[in-house]
Amino acid sequence: MNQDRRDRLRDAAIAVLAEAGGRGLTHRAVDAAAAVPTGTAKNYFPTRDALLRAVAERCLEQYRAMAAALAGAGPGPADARELAALLAGLLRDVAGPGRPRVLAYLELQTEATRRPWLATLLDPIAASDFASYAYLLRAAGLPAAPEQARALTLALHGTIPHLLAGTPDTLAAAGLDDLDLFTRGLLASVCAREAR
Amino acid sequence: MNQDRRDRLRDAAIAVLAEAGGRGLTHRAVDAAAAVPTGTAKNYFPTRDALLRAVAERCLEQYRAMAAALAGAGPGPADARELAALLAGLLRDVAGPGRPRVLAYLELQTEATRRPWLATLLDPIAASDFASYAYLLRAAGLPAAPEQARALTLALHGTIPHLLAGTPDTLAAAGLDDLDLFTRGLLASVCAREAR
Repeated sequence: MNQDRRDRLRDAAIAVLAEAGGRGLTHRAVDAAAAVPTGTAKNYFPTRDALLRAVAERCLEQYRAMAAALAGAGPGPADARELAALLAGLLRDVAGPGRPRVLAYLELQTEATRRPWLATLLDPIAASDFASYAYLLRAAGLPAAPEQARALTLALHGTIPHLLAGTPDTLAAAGLDDLDLFTRGLLASVCAREAR
Repeated sequence: MNQDRRDRLRDAAIAVLAEAGGRGLTHRAVDAAAAVPTGTAKNYFPTRDALLRAVAERCLEQYRAMAAALAGAGPGPADARELAALLAGLLRDVAGPGRPRVLAYLELQTEATRRPWLATLLDPIAASDFASYAYLLRAAGLPAAPEQARALTLALHGTIPHLLAGTPDTLAAAGLDDLDLFTRGLLASVCAREAR
């Protein structure tokens, strides 16, 4: 099997999952999105579970590449202000260019509640986030006890469905209508230190 | 139309959505789950969007009943320890008896990213959470600035997919393998006051 074509099909499957949801994820839809002959996706990924696994593995690769890029991008944020700006950038990506990727991940997470093998595949993504944010807190010179890294990580996870749905009352109640102010406030409250 | 039968169909639709996901939510599956003649669900809720709307409205009713019960249950938590116990109880419910309700809500939330009318319907649920948790923080005598209520509420929202998926590495990294310890730690870090 051709690796380029395989990657193209996996990226098409992510796009289909993001646009049409779990219900729309069919071999035929993936063939159409990848602009390949009908039957190609079924050839590479014979079952719907194989398609889901392919999307999950692609998400995991993308996540690792992002984490490596972040870790290799120099010494990390020098202070709370820089960390707040970095986090605001991540949230802006969720609501903007990263939307299809995050939507696909949200769909996978939902499917994973009914598929233990998929939950196991996704487990490292969410689990590594806690260590990554602890590292960023330390780099920024902020208190980074496990409780603080957990509160920060979970609060950031909690923003995702709200940012994707874009519902005005929830965004306003969460303070997510101003992402720079939001991340400064989040760091200030989670780390009990003035971050502004 | 018969209101009892309507409620029975809506509850069946929640059960179907929780068990089989958005993909499994069909009129036929709802008829079967409600043990009514084939065609009944289609009679009450002619389209799939009408079914989704019925589930969302039922979730909103359940949410309001829960919020009213919580508000009417006396003066609220007297201190941080009582609030931590109350929150641990809520999280235990998500992972336990409340699982179908929360799973259905997670499915709706995911579908809402592609359906603005559904996002609008669900908006009050997430939005009111912020005020509810601010109220509980104040009742417990804890600092309850908007930033703190937001961090607490979002962190609790962030626990939901992890509790539903039950993935061991993520639960351990999040500290969700011990819910009493978790909520005490969360309050301590979010409210910058020793809550143990």
